[in-house]
Amino acid sequence: MDISAVNSLSYEEFVEIFGNVVEKCPLVAATVWSQRPFSSISDIETAITDFIDGLPNAGKEGILRCHPDLAGWDLQRGMLTPESQAEQSHAGLTQLEPAEAAHISALNTQYKQHFGFPFIICARMNDKPTILLQLHQRLSNKPAHELVRAIQEVKRICHLRLHGLMCHSGPSHLNSTPPKL
Amino acid sequence: MDISAVNSLSYEEFVEIFGNVVEKCPLVAATVWSQRPFSSISDIETAITDFIDGLPNAGKEGILRCHPDLAGWDLQRGMLTPESQAEQSHAGLTQLEPAEAAHISALNTQYKQHFGFPFIICARMNDKPTILLQLHQRLSNKPAHELVRAIQEVKRICHLRLHGLMCHSGPSHLNSTPPKL
Repeated sequence: MDISAVNSLSYEEFVEIFGNVVEKCPLVAATVWSQRPFSSISDIETAITDFIDGLPNAGKEGILRCHPDLAGWDLQRGMLTPESQAEQSHAGLTQLEPAEAAHISALNTQYKQHFGFPFIICARMNDKPTILLQLHQRLSNKPAHELVRAIQEVKRICHLRLHGLMCHSGPSHLNSTPPKL
Repeated sequence: MDISAVNSLSYEEFVEIFGNVVEKCPLVAATVWSQRPFSSISDIETAITDFIDGLPNAGKEGILRCHPDLAGWDLQRGMLTPESQAEQSHAGLTQLEPAEAAHISALNTQYKQHFGFPFIICARMNDKPTILLQLHQRLSNKPAHELVRAIQEVKRICHLRLHGLMCHSGPSHLNSTPPKL
């Protein structure tokens, strides 16, 4: 899909396609639609990061809290978004040995108790060993620093999801949407 | 559920229960969780309205764009959230004559073309005739005024959903959530 096709989308189509570039936050796509026409994919990404950066810290924490645990409860009960499922699978987190799963679960719990949001890392840019290492290391960060760090990861995930959609999306994504405005 | 029970919820439980007090914007509940402990239900509501009021205009428009059309496509294909389904049903919008449905659809389309977001009204505080009247009248509002007007309606909907949850929610809402932090 090229940028002129994106610029011709109604807000309903835009949210249908880009609504999960920030996990479970369709509000982000619904917001940046106001800034059409976009000159490029980077322009969309800038609008998204500007919106996130403009949120108060509680809002940034809110964005993090809309994410699932890595190798956590939503994965176990089959409730991950398709994007998260693919990303966690890519990093080998969907096929853990029981001992590994218990270890990650204990670290996730410790992280959430400490920071009040889940551990987030761009799974497509990491593998299982680096994810575990990061989880250990980031646990000792100061909360204000870790908030910044986690939002960086949200932006990395968003970058890859956005590029994936621009490469692969087309009319098939719109089969279930209403007639365009 | 009383306020002390709310204050004891993990963010996961809080978002599970209150995640749709603003339609399809779990980010809002996920954000205000940072402000615990709450002194009352009004305190939660104030945190929510403060967050919405603090958004840039594009963010407010984004909140509106996360709402479905009244008597629209999502209703027809059974894709409304349970809250919206109950509210639209209460106002008699789920059982329209074909001519009424076509009339509302045409007005909704006209409204969306004009404002770039869907017509929103607190269906529980109105009936079919007043909703139609409002839709007609508000179409002639200036965009900046209509944005303020529509956000007022979002807050009314949120108020009723929040009070409904505080009256009726209990442990049964938590059956599928993970162990508390």
